[in-house]
Order: sequence, then structure tokens, then C-alpha cells
Amino acid sequence: MHNTGYVHGYSEREAGRLRDQAQTLTELLHHDTRYPAGSRVLEAGCGVGAQTVTLALQSPDACFTCIDCSEASLAEAKMRVTTAGHRNVTFQKANIFDLPFGSASFDHVFICFVLEHLPDPAGALNRLKQVLKPGGTITVIEGDHGSAYFHPNSLFAQRAIDCLVALQKDAGGNALIGRELYPLLISAGFRNVAVSPRMVYADTSKPGLVEGFTKLTFTAMVEGVGDEAIRKGMIGKAEWEQGIRDLYRTTEPDGTFCYTFFKATGIK
Amino acid sequence: MHNTGYVHGYSEREAGRLRDQAQTLTELLHHDTRYPAGSRVLEAGCGVGAQTVTLALQSPDACFTCIDCSEASLAEAKMRVTTAGHRNVTFQKANIFDLPFGSASFDHVFICFVLEHLPDPAGALNRLKQVLKPGGTITVIEGDHGSAYFHPNSLFAQRAIDCLVALQKDAGGNALIGRELYPLLISAGFRNVAVSPRMVYADTSKPGLVEGFTKLTFTAMVEGVGDEAIRKGMIGKAEWEQGIRDLYRTTEPDGTFCYTFFKATGIK
Repeated sequence: MHNTGYVHGYSEREAGRLRDQAQTLTELLHHDTRYPAGSRVLEAGCGVGAQTVTLALQSPDACFTCIDCSEASLAEAKMRVTTAGHRNVTFQKANIFDLPFGSASFDHVFICFVLEHLPDPAGALNRLKQVLKPGGTITVIEGDHGSAYFHPNSLFAQRAIDCLVALQKDAGGNALIGRELYPLLISAGFRNVAVSPRMVYADTSKPGLVEGFTKLTFTAMVEGVGDEAIRKGMIGKAEWEQGIRDLYRTTEPDGTFCYTFFKATGIK
Repeated sequence: MHNTGYVHGYSEREAGRLRDQAQTLTELLHHDTRYPAGSRVLEAGCGVGAQTVTLALQSPDACFTCIDCSEASLAEAKMRVTTAGHRNVTFQKANIFDLPFGSASFDHVFICFVLEHLPDPAGALNRLKQVLKPGGTITVIEGDHGSAYFHPNSLFAQRAIDCLVALQKDAGGNALIGRELYPLLISAGFRNVAVSPRMVYADTSKPGLVEGFTKLTFTAMVEGVGDEAIRKGMIGKAEWEQGIRDLYRTTEPDGTFCYTFFKATGIK
């Protein structure tokens, strides 16, 4: 089937849609993050460099130091950034709770989709504040799985999402951390804290978001914890499968899907 | 107590905050609704004229016909609009399902916080479409009580909100209609349907929203159905009171509150 010209053409359109969607989300989350020439920026927990490429592109004359505690992730991040042609990024293996940098080493700190996985996000913010110069900024971006709602509404889909939230909590994280960024930054002593919610709303008029976000990002992520949730007895198999079906159901022509990311900034 | 200068001064600041907050919400929901000079606009279900004043102000040279099925509401709306000095508004007692207007009588239709209360919102949109000229626009604004989430999170607060949603359903309405506007307008045959979510995010840095929206609008609204919810056995008294306390808890300095309105437009 993939050999017919029609399907090939369709696949190309599909790929275009996904690129557009990724572009839409990147724009939504990162368009207003730009660092001045010469400024030293720490990206804490860069993972495989998904955000790093955008940071480096948008602030070509800033110098980024990107840390992660996984060598494998750093290797992939380095490959991505090099492939994209950026030369303003240095990678280093390091843990947020044991930073190999002196006080006030950075002009800015950027941390995205990391605090949600940490048992002590407030402690992490405190450590990052130490390596930040007085007057420097921190930028934090997190999702919030409790911000997901959709049409048609479904208790089963809600329960499946609740399993993901519970599993992340069991692992020491907090999948509802987005709504909590303001008090977290305040308690870490940052000032001028400003939180800006970035809502994703997908309906049929936005096919790239329906496919790229509702299906391939959010629902795929929930689907990924199904075996574990069922094995741990959090939910029955039939109920789980109904929940996943109901999440996909929201991607049909009369469906809608909402999710909100939170972007917070503060000054040391 | 209200005779002391201090409290008087405080009250004035409070009143200022509330005006600012009302202004913020008005801006958020209505800033992009402007009708051309001479255009005939139907406001369906104007109630006490809360939106009418803004519509008339923002489109001083459009001619508004505002209908409601309550004489008492119409009288109050008329008083508000007259007091505000607008002369471009006519009021008329009428029911959306029995409109006293011929086909294609209006260039535009505006309907805000009405569909949520109707057992047949799709039917209402169909009736409104009949009195709209081909090429004319409809603008629909609704909330969605399932879009409310907050920090600290609370199962009791969630259950209290669920009671409000259930009571509105019992009364034939749909408190989760915001997320559903896209398919509703499509199914009524409107084209170029575009839905724009308008999220309210309140933290301590926005005291006017905390006070005016979280406390005095949303929590007060939930609180208002407490007696009925308890009497109908939907929730226990102690659980209800905990839920309301937990909603107020989100207005303390480390709390946050999120709610989303949906604004949809379509063309006949």
C-alpha cells in the first residue's frame, strides 16, 4: 500500500502536518525566549536536546551550557545540535543537585519538562539559583496532565489519565506541577515571578494539532503506561482500553481536546 | 466598621480591584468583537445586559436588538444601557425558539452564556441561523466548568464543582459546553468556524483576578448551589464544606486557579 503514488503523496502531506504541528508547539512554548549576545545560559536537564535546538537557533549569539545526568541522552542531544549546525552549545554530564559550577556562573537558566520528574523541585530551583547571577533570569516550562479535557467527555479516558498521574507520583514526580510553578518559584526566592499559561486547543480545523498533539503526543504518552497501570492493579484491562479508545475518539471530526503548558519566569 | 477611614479607604481599593478585574475579563472575552457602522446585530439572551453595555460601547454605530424571555431582566438591561448613555440598543421580549423576526433580518448574531442553559443548544443555533443573513457572522461565548483546576489540588473541591455540573445537567443544561462549541456550530451548518479559548489564570501576582474571579465569581457560584446539592443527597454537608474551604484555599498566597472560556465565531 505504501508503494502507491497516492499514499506516498498522502504521507508527505502527513509529514508536513506533523512538522507544522511541532512548529506550532515550539512557537507556542518558546517564541518569547531569546537571550542576548554573549550571555551565558544553563539548560538544566536538556535530555535528547529537543528544546536545545530551538534555544540555540533563537539565540545564536548566546553561549549555552547544557547538562543532563544521562550520557546516552547527551550523546543524542549533541548529535542533534551539531546536525542542526549550531556551534554555541557545550554539553556536560551533571546532576542538578550536584552542579559543577561556581556561584553566579550563569546569566540565565532554562529548564523544561524536568521538575515534573523530581521528588524535590523546590530544592532543584534553589540549586539552580545558586549558579545564577543576581539579576539573572530563570525560565521554567512544565505541562499539567490535570489540564487535559476533551469532547466527547469520558470517565474512562479520565481514569486512564489519572493512572499516568498516579504512576508519575509513585516514581517521585508530579504530573500536575504546571499549576504550581508560581508558588514554587516564589518559595525558591525568585522575584518578579510571572506565569504564562500556554493552552493547546485542537479541533478538526487544526488537523496538525489533532494528529501531532492529541494522538501522537498526549494519547500515545498515556497509552505507554497501560501495561504498568494494569499490572499494578490501578485499573482493569477493559476499562483501560475503553479509556484509550475514548481519547482517540476525541480526534474524530466532532471531537475537541484541550491541554495547558505553563511557562514561568523569575529574576534572582 | 465601615465608618472608619481606613476601612473606607480599603473598600475603595477593593472596588478598584474589582473594576480592574471586571475590565480584565471584559477585555479577555470581548476585545475582538466589533461590528461595522450600520450593521444590525441580534443579541440573543441578553439577560440583565452585562454584555450589552460592552457591545454597545465597542460598536457605537451598530444597531443592536437585544432579546430575552424575562421581562425583569430586560428592564434591568434597559436601565443599565440607558444609564451608560448608549442609544443604539433596542430591547424586545422574545424566545430564541420563537423569534419574531423574518429570515435574514440581521447582519450578525451574538450569544453569550446562554447555550449552557438550553436543553437543545443545536436547535437554538439553527433558529438563530435562520434570522441571520447569508455571509453574516455568529459569535458564541461559553464557559466550561470542567476547565477549572487549581493549586492546592483538592478532591473535595472537585466534587463540589461536579455537583454544580450535575445540577445544571438536571436542569437541562450543560456546564461543560465550552469545549463543545466547535462541533455545535459545525452541525448547525456554519462555516469558517473558529474557536478561541480564553483562559483565566489567577495567582497572587493578580490580586484582582483572585478576588474578583476565583472568589467572587467562580467559588461564589459553586457555593450558591450548596443547599440544593446537599438536599438532593449529591454530597454530604461536611464534604461540601471542605470543598468550599478548599476552593477558598486556592486564593491564599501560594494558591493558583485556572478556568477557560471559549469564544467561537462562524459564518452563515
